[in-house]
Amino acid sequence: MTTHVPPPAVQSPAAAFAARYRATTIPPVDLWSPVLDRVFAHATVRNYLPDPLPDGTLEVLVGAAQSAASSSNLQLWSVIAVEDPARRARLAALAGNQQHIAVAPLILLFVADLSRAARVATRHGRPQEGLDYLDTFLVGALDAALAAQNAVLAAESLGLGTVYIGALRNRITEVAAELKLPSHVAPVFGLVVGRPDPQKPAGIKPRLPQSAVLHRETYGADGEAEAIAAYDEQFHAFQNEQGLPRQDWSSVLAARIASAAFLNGRERLADALRAFGFALK
Amino acid sequence: MTTHVPPPAVQSPAAAFAARYRATTIPPVDLWSPVLDRVFAHATVRNYLPDPLPDGTLEVLVGAAQSAASSSNLQLWSVIAVEDPARRARLAALAGNQQHIAVAPLILLFVADLSRAARVATRHGRPQEGLDYLDTFLVGALDAALAAQNAVLAAESLGLGTVYIGALRNRITEVAAELKLPSHVAPVFGLVVGRPDPQKPAGIKPRLPQSAVLHRETYGADGEAEAIAAYDEQFHAFQNEQGLPRQDWSSVLAARIASAAFLNGRERLADALRAFGFALK
Repeated sequence: MTTHVPPPAVQSPAAAFAARYRATTIPPVDLWSPVLDRVFAHATVRNYLPDPLPDGTLEVLVGAAQSAASSSNLQLWSVIAVEDPARRARLAALAGNQQHIAVAPLILLFVADLSRAARVATRHGRPQEGLDYLDTFLVGALDAALAAQNAVLAAESLGLGTVYIGALRNRITEVAAELKLPSHVAPVFGLVVGRPDPQKPAGIKPRLPQSAVLHRETYGADGEAEAIAAYDEQFHAFQNEQGLPRQDWSSVLAARIASAAFLNGRERLADALRAFGFALK
Repeated sequence: MTTHVPPPAVQSPAAAFAARYRATTIPPVDLWSPVLDRVFAHATVRNYLPDPLPDGTLEVLVGAAQSAASSSNLQLWSVIAVEDPARRARLAALAGNQQHIAVAPLILLFVADLSRAARVATRHGRPQEGLDYLDTFLVGALDAALAAQNAVLAAESLGLGTVYIGALRNRITEVAAELKLPSHVAPVFGLVVGRPDPQKPAGIKPRLPQSAVLHRETYGADGEAEAIAAYDEQFHAFQNEQGLPRQDWSSVLAARIASAAFLNGRERLADALRAFGFALK
């Protein structure tokens, strides 16, 4: 017996845009859908209950992930589902002590996987020169990202929460060892899945005004500084609501890219990938 | 006046899994949702009507895209919306004469954008050493992919179709020039959006069995060869329905990775990115 979870109550484009952009100017919108309500309502969840997931959840999330487009249908990605509490605790430590990895019942490790293609080629007695190029790694990583985003929306549509864990790339070599990844497989990111703690609801984070991100016909940065200044103000309001310290988004961004030291280990990504067998030509 | 497009009629997990995997074994599923019906029903559309999109569609797609997670909220991506028919025709030519780019009314070019961060850092008088690393480029590309997948589901929920255009990386330097991209901005892929031609409906492409893609706790390839052999058979059935020539998926994959020549220009991606200012350290 499968329970059908209804879509969120139909809101309006005005409500969705106001929540995402804190903007009072709403574009003229002729069409809207319950899926859009769901997409616009996304919030990253970092507080979970340890409850197990309903039967079949993993298979549904993977089915949703595989339903995303795949470049030339090559399917150059895999996913490792980690439920074992001890392994989740080790991954939490590797990701800079992100405790939600240890608390939530599931983390999905999305990996760029050229090893399956290599095994297929070997069985067919063919060379594998194409695996040595940066673009081929990128195809695997991008397809993994498309797949993961489908899994996010699938999970949210079932009342679950998610958070991406890019910090697993900080110590990517240890993560690959923990997951017993063979050559030509690289972790891209993790995705924690679980039931959100209703006592600690997540807020919808405002994004940059569309004028700073959307370009028409060709790239242009006119008006960008003003748009970012306005966003810095909107971000203050969000942080205040969340009980977080006041920071300018632009200052945080500038600090983050100032030094390789702030990459927290990811400055070694290219070397790590080469050690995994990706030549990245 | 906004028209609310209802979600697809509620199907069942059994129907969704049967369409995506052509499998008769359906996992036990306790929960299902209309969003899942939408996600599982994805099909790539290559036949479009030239009709213009409803008012506000672009803003809704970009709003959906920006609602996706962003690594540390750095928002290292942008999107260029191309509607001009002459420019679309030139992009169609650069993508190996993919005529759907010229026919459909809109193509969104998703780009990894470190230039906005560089401008912010310059205004703050800060160095930008972090931009020189492969991981930072990857963050931009991955965030662009998460964003694009949200745009896909948003478009599909409004009755529109989409197709990703990775082939724009075949001639990435010419594409960057066409879009007047500044330094530190790189095309990741295009996304065509338009109204599907009802005379030429797209089919749901079967994917590899979950056993070949989903790993539990650690990576393992046991049973993979058998799963791929089964998939080769399922793929024959799909191609037959679509009037396409009979090919083994595994043979196509093996041929595709056999030689750098089959990368069609993408074997020069790393050099092109370096010329765009990405040091990829």
